[in-house]
Amino acid sequence: MLKNKVVKLSVRPIGFPPKETWIYGNEDVKEINEGEILLKNLYVSFDPAMRGWLNEARSYIPPVKIGEVMRAGTLGEVVNSKNSKFKKGDILSGWGGVQQYSISNGKGYFKVPNTEIPLPTYIGTLGMPGMTAYFGILEVGKIKHGDTVLVSAAAGAVGSIVGQIAKIKGCKVIGIAGGKDKCDYVVNELGFDGCIDYKNESVKRGIKRECPEGIDVYFDNVGGEILDAALIFLKMGARVVVCGAISQYNEMSAKGPNNYLSLLVNRASMKGMVVFDFAEKYPLATKEMTEWILNGTLKSKEDIYEGIDNFYEVFKKLFNGEKKGKLILKL
Amino acid sequence: MLKNKVVKLSVRPIGFPPKETWIYGNEDVKEINEGEILLKNLYVSFDPAMRGWLNEARSYIPPVKIGEVMRAGTLGEVVNSKNSKFKKGDILSGWGGVQQYSISNGKGYFKVPNTEIPLPTYIGTLGMPGMTAYFGILEVGKIKHGDTVLVSAAAGAVGSIVGQIAKIKGCKVIGIAGGKDKCDYVVNELGFDGCIDYKNESVKRGIKRECPEGIDVYFDNVGGEILDAALIFLKMGARVVVCGAISQYNEMSAKGPNNYLSLLVNRASMKGMVVFDFAEKYPLATKEMTEWILNGTLKSKEDIYEGIDNFYEVFKKLFNGEKKGKLILKL
Repeated sequence: MLKNKVVKLSVRPIGFPPKETWIYGNEDVKEINEGEILLKNLYVSFDPAMRGWLNEARSYIPPVKIGEVMRAGTLGEVVNSKNSKFKKGDILSGWGGVQQYSISNGKGYFKVPNTEIPLPTYIGTLGMPGMTAYFGILEVGKIKHGDTVLVSAAAGAVGSIVGQIAKIKGCKVIGIAGGKDKCDYVVNELGFDGCIDYKNESVKRGIKRECPEGIDVYFDNVGGEILDAALIFLKMGARVVVCGAISQYNEMSAKGPNNYLSLLVNRASMKGMVVFDFAEKYPLATKEMTEWILNGTLKSKEDIYEGIDNFYEVFKKLFNGEKKGKLILKL
Repeated sequence: MLKNKVVKLSVRPIGFPPKETWIYGNEDVKEINEGEILLKNLYVSFDPAMRGWLNEARSYIPPVKIGEVMRAGTLGEVVNSKNSKFKKGDILSGWGGVQQYSISNGKGYFKVPNTEIPLPTYIGTLGMPGMTAYFGILEVGKIKHGDTVLVSAAAGAVGSIVGQIAKIKGCKVIGIAGGKDKCDYVVNELGFDGCIDYKNESVKRGIKRECPEGIDVYFDNVGGEILDAALIFLKMGARVVVCGAISQYNEMSAKGPNNYLSLLVNRASMKGMVVFDFAEKYPLATKEMTEWILNGTLKSKEDIYEGIDNFYEVFKKLFNGEKKGKLILKL
């Protein structure tokens, strides 16, 4: 009988989740019913949003329940199918969770096409983070040729794609990242016009230097002091895309942007987004981004670790600033 | 020779402006040159924005300079004219400042039509506060029939008009105001569907009771804790109009809305506005609002004090919650 190693939510954490937040189990894999598929999960996606799913509070998606498998995006291979839409050997992306095997009726699963693009890219640049970047900067940020775009967490899975898309669309793009290595990567490998190292300089001073005429679009992944600094430099009619707030996810009480009245002075707007709203248009975005990847204009970087037993060690990297690119666990 | 009593900015205040912020002078009225008009100011408009104009910081309008006449909207009568556009006896609205007489080339002055509407209404509901309300709720808030609209400072010059326009457009309208008197006025005289008395109950509890299905549009005049409470109850796709932040204008450092991530969860937006951007459309708004006033669907209330020597006493009423309706000084 097949055994399934599984990571389940054990208690709701307060602040940064301790190891005991999750328990590890080893369960029998059940027989599948008519209409179902059995997937062997190959890669698990790690996203900062995971922290939010642990809270009981009302949000854009129901919280993970106590005792439930930890929610995560996955790439898995169909090892058994009683569903006519999928056959053995298909590689699917979907919400398999942090476990070695998952059973599904196929809802929310999509076949990964057979291309020369490495598999993990399909949960990174061609997965949720890439879709977030694409629709966030184009449809919420509404960038125009010549705009000055500032992106926080610029070396991360979302920020790195946001900036590259903005470059493709003819914007001036400045990143914010932590440490010289990441900043070098953002400028030299991803082609941003500049990068502010928040660990070694004042973000305000950095923005003033890199964006002397102000910011048209600020894509915010982090919240906190960096959001507050960006607000100071908004140009007339600027757009702030509220995509996330990594700096706040583990705080007991979030801190709001004290400089929000810059929205008034500059007739600017701040708009929240959740990528799921754009699900119908994913195929279009995937098509365009696949072309960009294949012709070399869009670079994708994954930071891959191995083994389900390392779940907690990898989870910590979401928040300690260590990761570079999309964080993935290979099972 | 005509004498002009004048109130000038003396020092930049920190926090709430003390009396010594302004000095009072008595000056000779100069002869006017070709193209100029001499106005005898009849009414001076008091607006919370005046506090912001005292700060040196970059804003939507240059600060009042030290030694300059305090900026204020006025209604004045032309007593001498060397400008072909205006003749003696015309009543003009414009930026005459806190003084008995002002000289201008006529730029930014508009003739007040001769109607049965009382003069002071032309610096209230048909002046800057009314235009702010009209364009703020219609063009920035983009209200639709059936929306639930929450308005802070609901008994004030802007809030009272915002709510009435939203009612005219078929919305459910809830106000927030300080004290039973103001709340009664908002519901019984202005026709709001409900009002939350922030001095005597928790705003959160009040919103929950009055808007059990959440808020489509929140029109914010106050900032601070009330803005934070409103953010909690946003519906999907809600719009927050950032019009002002009375609670913050006299603070050394403003406090941001800690619950701003509700924008993300609810795909909502927060947008700043400054009424001057809509100047070209003032005549249209004035026409529509004049009709509403004349047919009794839009009520207008002015809180009028007398005498330029009372400038400071009246200024204080902008922030101490004492005023009800548009605050005006009659000279």
